[in-house]
Amino acid sequence: MIFDAKILGIFTTFKKRTGKMKAEIINIGDELLIGQTINTNAGWMGEHLDLAGIQVTQSVAISDGKEDILKAIDAASKNANIVLITGGLGPTKDDITKHTLCEYFGSKLVMNQQVLEMITTYFTKRGKKMLQVNIDQALVPDNCEVLINTQGTASGMWFEKEGTVFVSLPGVPYEMKYLMEFEVLPRLSKISNFKSFHHTIKTIGVGESFLAEIIQDWETQMRNDGLKLAYLPSPGIVKLRISCYGNNQEENIEKVTLYSKSLEKLIPNYIFGYNKEELSEIVGDLLLDAGKTVGVCESCTGGYLSHLFTEISGSSKYYNGSVVSYTNHLKNKLLKVADETLEKYGAVSEPVVEEMVKGGLELLETDFVITISGVAGPTGGTDLKPVGMVCVGVGNHSEIKTFTYQFGTDRKRNITMASIYAMNELRKMLVESKK
Amino acid sequence: MIFDAKILGIFTTFKKRTGKMKAEIINIGDELLIGQTINTNAGWMGEHLDLAGIQVTQSVAISDGKEDILKAIDAASKNANIVLITGGLGPTKDDITKHTLCEYFGSKLVMNQQVLEMITTYFTKRGKKMLQVNIDQALVPDNCEVLINTQGTASGMWFEKEGTVFVSLPGVPYEMKYLMEFEVLPRLSKISNFKSFHHTIKTIGVGESFLAEIIQDWETQMRNDGLKLAYLPSPGIVKLRISCYGNNQEENIEKVTLYSKSLEKLIPNYIFGYNKEELSEIVGDLLLDAGKTVGVCESCTGGYLSHLFTEISGSSKYYNGSVVSYTNHLKNKLLKVADETLEKYGAVSEPVVEEMVKGGLELLETDFVITISGVAGPTGGTDLKPVGMVCVGVGNHSEIKTFTYQFGTDRKRNITMASIYAMNELRKMLVESKK
Repeated sequence: MIFDAKILGIFTTFKKRTGKMKAEIINIGDELLIGQTINTNAGWMGEHLDLAGIQVTQSVAISDGKEDILKAIDAASKNANIVLITGGLGPTKDDITKHTLCEYFGSKLVMNQQVLEMITTYFTKRGKKMLQVNIDQALVPDNCEVLINTQGTASGMWFEKEGTVFVSLPGVPYEMKYLMEFEVLPRLSKISNFKSFHHTIKTIGVGESFLAEIIQDWETQMRNDGLKLAYLPSPGIVKLRISCYGNNQEENIEKVTLYSKSLEKLIPNYIFGYNKEELSEIVGDLLLDAGKTVGVCESCTGGYLSHLFTEISGSSKYYNGSVVSYTNHLKNKLLKVADETLEKYGAVSEPVVEEMVKGGLELLETDFVITISGVAGPTGGTDLKPVGMVCVGVGNHSEIKTFTYQFGTDRKRNITMASIYAMNELRKMLVESKK
Repeated sequence: MIFDAKILGIFTTFKKRTGKMKAEIINIGDELLIGQTINTNAGWMGEHLDLAGIQVTQSVAISDGKEDILKAIDAASKNANIVLITGGLGPTKDDITKHTLCEYFGSKLVMNQQVLEMITTYFTKRGKKMLQVNIDQALVPDNCEVLINTQGTASGMWFEKEGTVFVSLPGVPYEMKYLMEFEVLPRLSKISNFKSFHHTIKTIGVGESFLAEIIQDWETQMRNDGLKLAYLPSPGIVKLRISCYGNNQEENIEKVTLYSKSLEKLIPNYIFGYNKEELSEIVGDLLLDAGKTVGVCESCTGGYLSHLFTEISGSSKYYNGSVVSYTNHLKNKLLKVADETLEKYGAVSEPVVEEMVKGGLELLETDFVITISGVAGPTGGTDLKPVGMVCVGVGNHSEIKTFTYQFGTDRKRNITMASIYAMNELRKMLVESKK
């Protein structure tokens, strides 16, 4: 409780200073500057600060030199009242953030017993020898509040100076994320009256610009009502994130719910899920609920659709197996696709993917089978069957549906799109059969 | 030639000013700050500048507000003699970089006929209507040299002011990369006497720290000799990049070649390729050379090994097909793995992957077959067969080899590692058979 009061104290200085929370992110590390590591921390932190209603004004990657660090911290403190720093907290002599922060704040390092015990346990558990450099990781500046890191040996540190909060976090992404989620963001939300609520609606099979056209009146209305909308596209999928920021969280939730419902009425056939749900998990849950199994017979996607099923832990409960029949001979030998069908219609055709479903049901002995045959590209296309043309079949012993899609010219993208669209057809069939 | 002289003129001011080329990267875009787009441009640009022997002192992501852009450019020009700016060059009113640069340099926009023609062609080819905003993209500041962008409608721009070069590039990664590769980096290399040479040796099956221990004397020696070494790890693979920077390129090449050869002698069994070559391409080339085909029978990797083969364009020349036998029943039915073998040794065992090879050769009718069976995790492990234990088989009609690996607890990482290690065993067998 003492802690809360302290935090609320900071908030008062915040309000006095600018009335609004602005954050700047500083990521320390030579490896970021020379592209050896892609700086994913900046984006993740920016997203989560933005979701919390905090404006990110700048993010900067700098080398692990003392002067550069001091200059960046000083510059950031002039623009923002929250300065988040990652990196340079490891045990090696390259890791100078802690010492540099001591110099900046005029503080000194003291041994923290709680952290020392945690580090000792960390090494004992792993049967590793603890060196002096590891013990020294329990040294923390005497003017900071320690943020306990259960994921590693470098602590997070929370400082305050003249109404500005400075937070130092390890650069290892999962350690940084842990501390952000369980220590930093909860503290920031306490010192802010500002609340936010978000809901993500996931669509498939419709392009971003087409979607924007369908929902434009709705979008205008929700924006006029003070809500925000983000289009988050990935191959085949567009996520729509609806956000409401404001001091009254009940009102935020109410508004987001209202607009989510009206959006669902506008585009019911494109929605496949919400928030963190993945398409493969949704299909897996539908199969589990129905007590059914699935098998895959793929050609141009070459194992990728099978991979989407099997990368999900627990998929063995509903996924039995696959055949990748890359040659016509294997389509015939394993899946009993008739030579005449292959000759008459070609391997990339609806009659072929239909026969593949029938053959797959028999071979893999599953309740459902998904099949794919197409031209992944970039070569191999013809006028009649251009690169990006993909046929999909999905069915069981009583019903088989077939589809033809035309994707683009990029091989990897075509493989991804075809796999996702095929999986979505099974989802639709499973949803339909529940009705 | 006039251009070259102009560039050499700049170099003189460079040398006068600092004697060394330092670059700062500015990436403009709100989407970067709120994590809607991960800033991969900064890393890519940093890597290529570093490879060209140019030191990157800072990279900063800022919002697309005029004041923020002006402030960032001004700050960068104080620290660096090369300022690279991406983003904000699109046709919409959010894209204000061009106007802001005019304000910074005190220049004005003029219509560039060459760019206008290119944009017109771009729209004509795609059968799209050209709007005034598109025509306006041919307006460029009168004090810049235009860098022609054949990949899109936003031109690159090269400015000089008081011995500092400022380059503005589009934010779309493939447009930025095109302009960097064909316009910016060649110009920068012309104004620098500084040359660099790099050679990457790719290893598999050995951890970063173990590798570092084996080559430590070699590494000390090469570093003392002025060379640089970067460890670039990804699951299962560690790339070692050897670099030499110096004015005499012949000497750079000689040194890198010398140390590359001595490194190859130290770790011959871990090396699988060089520079941009992917493992799956190397294995594909070996199969093509030998005129042989391959098939895959996988269990815990669930299609991922097949995907690694088939994501390569042209793989249909040597890859025929796969079976994913996720259940014991399918291992028996399709691959003729004896029930007794499955019962006696369990599905994750060398006898099972060996029988899978035999069954696969018959079913898929290929020259070689790779098989995998393991515990991908995170659940499903036992004391005898813990999560991460994977058995691999590889062989043809005259020889079958089997292997057991112990990976970690992360499902996706285990799937990747198992697939890569299995593919590498085929590579070794193909290399062996060439001797």
